[in-house]
Amino acid sequence: MTRIALGIEYDGAEYSGWQRQAHARSVQAALEGAISAVACHPVEVAAAGRTDAGVHALGQVVHFDTAAKRPDRAWVRGVNSHLPADIGVRWVAHPGAGFDARRSGLARRYQYLLQDTPLRPVLARQRVGWTWQSMDVAAMAAAAAPLIGEHDFSSFRAAGCQAPHAVRRLLRLDVYRQGGVVVFDVEANAFLHHMVRNLVGSLMQVGSGERSSDWLAEVLAARDRRRAGVTAPAAGLYLLGVRYPPGFGLPDRPPAGAFACVPGQG
Amino acid sequence: MTRIALGIEYDGAEYSGWQRQAHARSVQAALEGAISAVACHPVEVAAAGRTDAGVHALGQVVHFDTAAKRPDRAWVRGVNSHLPADIGVRWVAHPGAGFDARRSGLARRYQYLLQDTPLRPVLARQRVGWTWQSMDVAAMAAAAAPLIGEHDFSSFRAAGCQAPHAVRRLLRLDVYRQGGVVVFDVEANAFLHHMVRNLVGSLMQVGSGERSSDWLAEVLAARDRRRAGVTAPAAGLYLLGVRYPPGFGLPDRPPAGAFACVPGQG
Repeated sequence: MTRIALGIEYDGAEYSGWQRQAHARSVQAALEGAISAVACHPVEVAAAGRTDAGVHALGQVVHFDTAAKRPDRAWVRGVNSHLPADIGVRWVAHPGAGFDARRSGLARRYQYLLQDTPLRPVLARQRVGWTWQSMDVAAMAAAAAPLIGEHDFSSFRAAGCQAPHAVRRLLRLDVYRQGGVVVFDVEANAFLHHMVRNLVGSLMQVGSGERSSDWLAEVLAARDRRRAGVTAPAAGLYLLGVRYPPGFGLPDRPPAGAFACVPGQG
Repeated sequence: MTRIALGIEYDGAEYSGWQRQAHARSVQAALEGAISAVACHPVEVAAAGRTDAGVHALGQVVHFDTAAKRPDRAWVRGVNSHLPADIGVRWVAHPGAGFDARRSGLARRYQYLLQDTPLRPVLARQRVGWTWQSMDVAAMAAAAAPLIGEHDFSSFRAAGCQAPHAVRRLLRLDVYRQGGVVVFDVEANAFLHHMVRNLVGSLMQVGSGERSSDWLAEVLAARDRRRAGVTAPAAGLYLLGVRYPPGFGLPDRPPAGAFACVPGQG
């Protein structure tokens, strides 16, 4: 058996999320079907990040084991030809048996796109979160800074989160404006369930002026989910990429951003 | 009766085009239904440009007549609340009875987005045209230059085009690269059916190196549709906006571009 890694892009709008489920359309099931067709045997894949319904990926990473010998183009173009239009393989790598898409990951990077315009987005509706309130980006950036580093993120964890503990190392939480869109650029060694969307939802309360910039650090210190803001909608969230030790030989290009620009809004 | 003008954005992916049809989903029918609900009487709308199936609009302009007196926010937010998520009103104006969305238009501007990457687009698939061939933008720009001005565009006209003659004044045909995407920025007093997509399809033959830069001027001079390239796919085309005489008091902001950036492609 050989272990193979693939880089995957998908539009999460029409899926119940990454994970295979009995009665719902999942990215995992679509991908396993396409890879199995090329490998000519049933294949199971494991992913670096199990994204929720409606969440997109530009740089999801998966691995699987196969006895089939195929040229690289079969694992990219061949698999693509068996996939629906809203999922695509971007690259293939041969990291060796010691590689695990989830456990070997050093850090995951997400971007959240938030459009703050008086009118709802139309062409961008499945690509951004939206608020009619104008966001104060400087206030949000100031609120975000104290969260960098290793902390207990219990306040930003979904009720159903299965992780054994809530300590995570936040490496980046940049907030900036690009065109008509606010970008939240977040990197951590790993994330709790809904952690990015809960961080964004809380930052939005600072951005709207409802809370001061100091508030987010207080919420973090409270370690209490009831203190934080609401969960931001899934449509704005993108898994940008995963960082691995260089020894595995995976592509290490800086990921292109999520939509850096969104069509003209009123 | 008062004449009202609206600026409209829509995602053409799920529509058979602008024009109302008996057994197909049209943007016009959806818009008329929503406006009629606000006006409390049946309303018919006329549009500046009758876009085809799959073609998007950032700045479509329509007019209609109504006896209803409503505040401006009813014609924007009220109509929006009756529209599906893939259509939205962006502004309202009161240009007077002499205004006609189609006949009063001095110029229409379209952008076509073409992604030229080895792998098919995923997140951007309904927002760009796509070719696996790498495009030579300088060669396309050189080929486009001689088409500026007033010419007979018969070579770039669809077989079923109903226009009485094919002379149009081309004001702009810029070709440039933005991120991983080639932008064709086209403005004319008016367009023939499929004219933008036929121009793009022909320019693509120059961009791929299949034809030289001189070829496009030859095709124009031939006035023969059989000489030009294929029609580029609808998904990449956006009606950006329409220019009117200043006297009508319509919003005259420069339109934001179509997607200036498209998510990271391999």
